[in-house]
Amino acid sequence: MILKIAIAQTNFLVGNISANLDHIIKAACHARDELGAEMIVFPELTITGYPAEDLLLRADFIANANNAIYQLADRIVDIALVVGFPEQDGEKLYNSAAVLHRGAMIACYRKQALPNYGVFDEQRYFDAGHQPCVFEFNGSFIGLTICEDVWQGGIIDASKQAGADILLTLNASPFNLGKIHQREAVICRQVKAAQIPLVYVNQVGGQDELIFDGASFVSDAQGDIVFRAAEFREQISVIEFVDHHPVKNTCAPLYTDIISAYQALVLGIKDYVRKNGFNGVILGLSGGIDSALVLALAVDALGADKVEAVLMPSRYTQTMSIDDALLEAEALGVKHHIIPIEPAVNAFTGMLAEVFAGSSRDTTDDCRDAGASAMQGAIAAENIQARCRGVVLMAISNKQGKLLLTTGNKSEMSVGYATLYGDMAGGFAPIKDVPKLLVYQLSRYRNSLSPVIPERVLTRPPSAELAPDQLDEDSLPPYDILDPILERYVELDQSAEQIIAAGFRSEDVARAVSLVDRNEYKRRQSPPGIRITGRAFGRDRRYPITSGYKGI
Amino acid sequence: MILKIAIAQTNFLVGNISANLDHIIKAACHARDELGAEMIVFPELTITGYPAEDLLLRADFIANANNAIYQLADRIVDIALVVGFPEQDGEKLYNSAAVLHRGAMIACYRKQALPNYGVFDEQRYFDAGHQPCVFEFNGSFIGLTICEDVWQGGIIDASKQAGADILLTLNASPFNLGKIHQREAVICRQVKAAQIPLVYVNQVGGQDELIFDGASFVSDAQGDIVFRAAEFREQISVIEFVDHHPVKNTCAPLYTDIISAYQALVLGIKDYVRKNGFNGVILGLSGGIDSALVLALAVDALGADKVEAVLMPSRYTQTMSIDDALLEAEALGVKHHIIPIEPAVNAFTGMLAEVFAGSSRDTTDDCRDAGASAMQGAIAAENIQARCRGVVLMAISNKQGKLLLTTGNKSEMSVGYATLYGDMAGGFAPIKDVPKLLVYQLSRYRNSLSPVIPERVLTRPPSAELAPDQLDEDSLPPYDILDPILERYVELDQSAEQIIAAGFRSEDVARAVSLVDRNEYKRRQSPPGIRITGRAFGRDRRYPITSGYKGI
Repeated sequence: MILKIAIAQTNFLVGNISANLDHIIKAACHARDELGAEMIVFPELTITGYPAEDLLLRADFIANANNAIYQLADRIVDIALVVGFPEQDGEKLYNSAAVLHRGAMIACYRKQALPNYGVFDEQRYFDAGHQPCVFEFNGSFIGLTICEDVWQGGIIDASKQAGADILLTLNASPFNLGKIHQREAVICRQVKAAQIPLVYVNQVGGQDELIFDGASFVSDAQGDIVFRAAEFREQISVIEFVDHHPVKNTCAPLYTDIISAYQALVLGIKDYVRKNGFNGVILGLSGGIDSALVLALAVDALGADKVEAVLMPSRYTQTMSIDDALLEAEALGVKHHIIPIEPAVNAFTGMLAEVFAGSSRDTTDDCRDAGASAMQGAIAAENIQARCRGVVLMAISNKQGKLLLTTGNKSEMSVGYATLYGDMAGGFAPIKDVPKLLVYQLSRYRNSLSPVIPERVLTRPPSAELAPDQLDEDSLPPYDILDPILERYVELDQSAEQIIAAGFRSEDVARAVSLVDRNEYKRRQSPPGIRITGRAFGRDRRYPITSGYKGI
Repeated sequence: MILKIAIAQTNFLVGNISANLDHIIKAACHARDELGAEMIVFPELTITGYPAEDLLLRADFIANANNAIYQLADRIVDIALVVGFPEQDGEKLYNSAAVLHRGAMIACYRKQALPNYGVFDEQRYFDAGHQPCVFEFNGSFIGLTICEDVWQGGIIDASKQAGADILLTLNASPFNLGKIHQREAVICRQVKAAQIPLVYVNQVGGQDELIFDGASFVSDAQGDIVFRAAEFREQISVIEFVDHHPVKNTCAPLYTDIISAYQALVLGIKDYVRKNGFNGVILGLSGGIDSALVLALAVDALGADKVEAVLMPSRYTQTMSIDDALLEAEALGVKHHIIPIEPAVNAFTGMLAEVFAGSSRDTTDDCRDAGASAMQGAIAAENIQARCRGVVLMAISNKQGKLLLTTGNKSEMSVGYATLYGDMAGGFAPIKDVPKLLVYQLSRYRNSLSPVIPERVLTRPPSAELAPDQLDEDSLPPYDILDPILERYVELDQSAEQIIAAGFRSEDVARAVSLVDRNEYKRRQSPPGIRITGRAFGRDRRYPITSGYKGI
């Protein structure tokens, strides 16, 4: 007995039900006509995209989603569709998977395990289902599960107990470094224990801060992967089951962590720009490593003709910074402008002279916008430079309808080493969740494909260039010390004591931890950026601004 | 039999466990020594403050909170304490209420109903309790409940069934317009049905976006209020129970909606400034109604000596705007500066001339930063003005360590009628959740106390003054049309069809709805502000930026 199931690793636009409906139909026709599939399985909440957030609280949106499912049942024949949708039943809403065949819904499963941690808020929207769902199709008994269900013990087993020969899982499982390995390990262990083959279909694409990596797979009943779809792109493939056993198929190799991170960032930029309808991006190019990497990512995502760079030197900008920025723009074939910021800086200095005349020095201690070098007592003047650049970039963005990319990294976001409305100004922050050391690794990886970042940019000490001879290390611990401290404090929730006990100097830990604690207000106003670690700032780490908690 | 229970309507700092511990002890000593109380009841999660958000995921924080409770039991005698804390039990965390007496925990209740809607995320942190808790104290049987428990059916009844003579409720119930009436109505109805007297203790104070209004109360078994604490301030009072019946006491009268809203805004500013350690605030004073109201609120919250106003006229600022702004500053006795923005605007215009030379007009349709008058084709130039003001204000804020208040209202935030990094620049947005029509009502109310806003400011048509003869109504429906549409769409989740069916013109609905849909990206970078409606932007309304949903 042979059964052909298509895996639709697809990229949907959250909220656009009619476009998603068309996309489903197109994929289903392809699977039926080109691949000979009898059934096609889509990702979790196919019809709305994931996560639709508080759109799920709108009655009109839910009604449209439910209507779309019933339409779908009538609009396609000769292939069964397994699609996810927010199922309304009276006052209750379920995260459900429907099986549509020959104009009817032949089965409907309600997700039992609703994640409400990390980036997930499913208990805000959904009621939980309480039972397995197994249906017969062309002689096979097929069980349905959705995402979190297969991470928890018991639900795979219950499907098997309910008679399933094959298990399908609809997913919207977001990427972070190491996630693919973790996902396959956790799920295949359970599959092996339950002895049932599993078809795991994941969404792909960028949605605000989240990247869905795809990497859909099929495991046989022994927990061995017999098929894997590519990471970070759409793919529709068919899997043949012979007497309920999946036939060995192509397994896309897994990328290394560095390549995965790079691909995730490229996809994140591409989808944010495309799905929000921008005609391109601009960014400020400083000659530093962060903007160099963002430029390369943007070009790889969008093509050089969609990217524009702006150099905005000040009196503190070294000639080599300008030279390197120009080399970067030229290497990637990107149009650029040079707009010195002195006229605006001078104008503000003059305008503020009278108000500032009375005050002896900046109130660094109380100051809540620490800026690029809070520690050096010239905050206001430094921030004015950064904000003049923000005004220039936003003016060009407004004029040309191009998205402004910010270039700050996660280390800076963590400790507030950035200027609000200055270098933080922009619509999207591609490397916001990339720690500085990883910025270097990604840059070297990109250069290994073709040389786009001058070697000097990779080797000179980082500087914000807002004051004479300024270096990041004047204000912060060196990044090879800072980054691991931040990972422990921000991502792993370790206490200062634990971090010190792990071998870090207490001064470094105290400095890093107190800066993280004090800069929540600044992060709250930062643009969204792409999540690639186990805990990003944003929906993943929800801290109060007003807080008496001190990590040190 | 007489029992004296003190109600501690207190204001805690989220995250500062040691300060909160001291505050608890001080209140308990006062209740014991001055008021003769045998027991004192505190608000929900007393020891951490509410909401502590993801601090609750930190093992060090939870350990400290649990240790503090055990210390507390030893540190105070001759009065029983009822305090809320995040109770750790192995891998589980409960939102609990402990009764501490004579060095021991004599009872501990675990909250059963965990709200996970609106501004609440309790299922992110807590496991639910499953049973009532009734303890004996000085001859009375007392039941414990926590906040959401008494809003749902069944839990009050279960406490009564379990033998309680008196029910205590620890709360952190946030304010919005009409909430106090709703709260008393819902809860007293249940009290009456169960026939059990209830002591309702609410937290008071501002915490980022949320205001806790206090208004703690005691209901007798018939559901009649026999005591009510004041709104919006700390109060410790003692209630006498004779044979389990509460003795009639003072009932603070309820404010009108307008006065409540005004008081909530004053408290919100006061607590944000105080709890975050600022030495004062600054704001831009335009001569318009919004900044006039924010100035009055700030002075009422902090005193005139803590407030500084900055007038930043441009070529489009009318003389009467400057005159009125000066009158406002003088009426309230506030120090002010006048800093014309022309030098900076001219500098940017010159710097951008070459880049802008090629482009015929602004790309209004694709432009994602619509700014103050997206519809008029001069976005970039208008936004430059607004952003020059932002740079000036932030420079003064940085220099002086004063918090910058933004002055935008909810109507503007809804439709994006504001400039990112321009008039949206600032650390706190007091009237962000106040619709424009309510801005007028609050201003008239404030003037009824003493005249601080010139009549002309209340009567002239609103204008952003970023272009010649510009009026808000050139770009938006009049506010008496716009505000009710926004309330229906944003707060009540009505569809455009429903709003049109309610009698609004389809053009007005289409304009308002599409602007709300398009401006989520801008709201995401706005500063936090005080929630006073049933749904504020922020944690209360979580929409994707990347979204194909179109309300119209």
